[in-house]
Amino acid sequence: MPDTPIGFIGLGIMGMSMARNLMKAGFPVVAWNRTPAKAQALAAEGAAAAGSPREVAQACPIIITMVTDSPDVEAVALGPGGVIEGIQPDAVHIDMSTISPTTTRKIAARLKEKGAHMLDAPVSGGSWGAQSGTLSIMVGGDEPVFPRCLPVFQGMGQSIVYVGGNGMGQVTKLVNQILVVGTMNAVAEALVFAAKSGADLEKTIDAVKGGAAGSWQLQNLGPRAVKGDFAPGFMVDLQQKDLRIILGVAEEMDLPLPATALVHQLYASLQAAGLGQEGTQALVKAHERLAGVEARVKG
Amino acid sequence: MPDTPIGFIGLGIMGMSMARNLMKAGFPVVAWNRTPAKAQALAAEGAAAAGSPREVAQACPIIITMVTDSPDVEAVALGPGGVIEGIQPDAVHIDMSTISPTTTRKIAARLKEKGAHMLDAPVSGGSWGAQSGTLSIMVGGDEPVFPRCLPVFQGMGQSIVYVGGNGMGQVTKLVNQILVVGTMNAVAEALVFAAKSGADLEKTIDAVKGGAAGSWQLQNLGPRAVKGDFAPGFMVDLQQKDLRIILGVAEEMDLPLPATALVHQLYASLQAAGLGQEGTQALVKAHERLAGVEARVKG
Repeated sequence: MPDTPIGFIGLGIMGMSMARNLMKAGFPVVAWNRTPAKAQALAAEGAAAAGSPREVAQACPIIITMVTDSPDVEAVALGPGGVIEGIQPDAVHIDMSTISPTTTRKIAARLKEKGAHMLDAPVSGGSWGAQSGTLSIMVGGDEPVFPRCLPVFQGMGQSIVYVGGNGMGQVTKLVNQILVVGTMNAVAEALVFAAKSGADLEKTIDAVKGGAAGSWQLQNLGPRAVKGDFAPGFMVDLQQKDLRIILGVAEEMDLPLPATALVHQLYASLQAAGLGQEGTQALVKAHERLAGVEARVKG
Repeated sequence: MPDTPIGFIGLGIMGMSMARNLMKAGFPVVAWNRTPAKAQALAAEGAAAAGSPREVAQACPIIITMVTDSPDVEAVALGPGGVIEGIQPDAVHIDMSTISPTTTRKIAARLKEKGAHMLDAPVSGGSWGAQSGTLSIMVGGDEPVFPRCLPVFQGMGQSIVYVGGNGMGQVTKLVNQILVVGTMNAVAEALVFAAKSGADLEKTIDAVKGGAAGSWQLQNLGPRAVKGDFAPGFMVDLQQKDLRIILGVAEEMDLPLPATALVHQLYASLQAAGLGQEGTQALVKAHERLAGVEARVKG
């Protein structure tokens, strides 16, 4: 299986690390990126650089896309010079971007007309997870091709779960993001309450994190926030992109998500303050502004 | 140390289990409850039943209270026939109820006039934790008496943390509850989104619980909710009592807690529907009503 050439389209912070991990796992990688410099950088490490998504698809039975948003995936998959122009019958397009389930289903239908398959396989775990190859991967789409793609997923991630038909990987990822932002907001409200009450913030986190209040967000991002470390594991601007998708899908379904919508507004206040490039834990700063208090330890 | 008689005031669902665990750990227990039948039930298992909180305090160098709300603690501590009338110099009143930090500090100041000490030691872990002796206990108050009370705490709980001066145990517990309700709300919004998207709810929880979306609430209460199990680990009515304390303290401090306040309103809608005795995971039902969808698996 590591002889199969894998196409990789989209070499951003996430994609570059994921493509490197595939190469480490022994897969030949054929890469394309909108900005060619990044594909050239990967070529210097042993990848082949293609001239277009079409060329990637011509060369590879499995083509991965890892770009930003629904229109970007649509452009590289269905646009001029896109994957659809080169894809072989029975080949698989795996889209690992986080995009709208509706767009995913549209692309899958078009690829099916060519006799090709699609998996939507968005990831969780941020740039840390991409680098270390410990991403969680939520896979939806044509189940019969999942086993053949599993070794590829295993080169990039740790927890790999097949969840259902086309679009269900994206649904699962959006569910993941609803949980992430709601839980992060609980952490932020808790920390400003603790700070304004004069509590020792690190002791407070330690006292509650092991019980019913515990979460990945509290355990991992709480201590960073109170130490003033707002470096991005996952950026506010990207979280906002995911929240726009979630709230768009929710609107299509007539589904109110009051706290999720609130957090979207609070993150917008951070973007207004020029903090869109900080990590999602900067949500604490939005509550600090509301509260007139800093939730920060010394040193 | 297990020879020290421990006073126990308040034998509700939580208090009864905690008192029993102290007896199992070898402590003689002197009990009082507003409804005498419960103290008599515990007496049948070997406890001594006292006639008033004053009598409990006269008999015991350590007196625990586990009642519902700030006025209840104030009544048994400072009211007629209360702990303060019987407490010995250097004795310790440990209040394990969840109440206002302001009330706690008032009681501590009054006990100090008698040469006695106070610890505020609210718990987390619900009735399951009380029964199994695995409560998390957050202790504030007079630090020099903490070591002498530690074996008593160890009889009832697993994670026992001293967090600061009088009232800081309560602050930590309120922080805990802000986290609990905000995280539970994220779980509820995520589950209705998943349900309305046609996802397999159990698979969805399994796919996301191990990563950045993970939490105690998702892991423990998510599966109960989707199976239609709304039996209380912790009741909506009691959660609302804690949220009233949180929002009251926040108002005293001019602290906006927008999501916490929202969840308080959603729980109020459950109380309006007669569901106040269900477990906190019934928050999912509040979102189901908003969304016009049931987040429930078959069977």
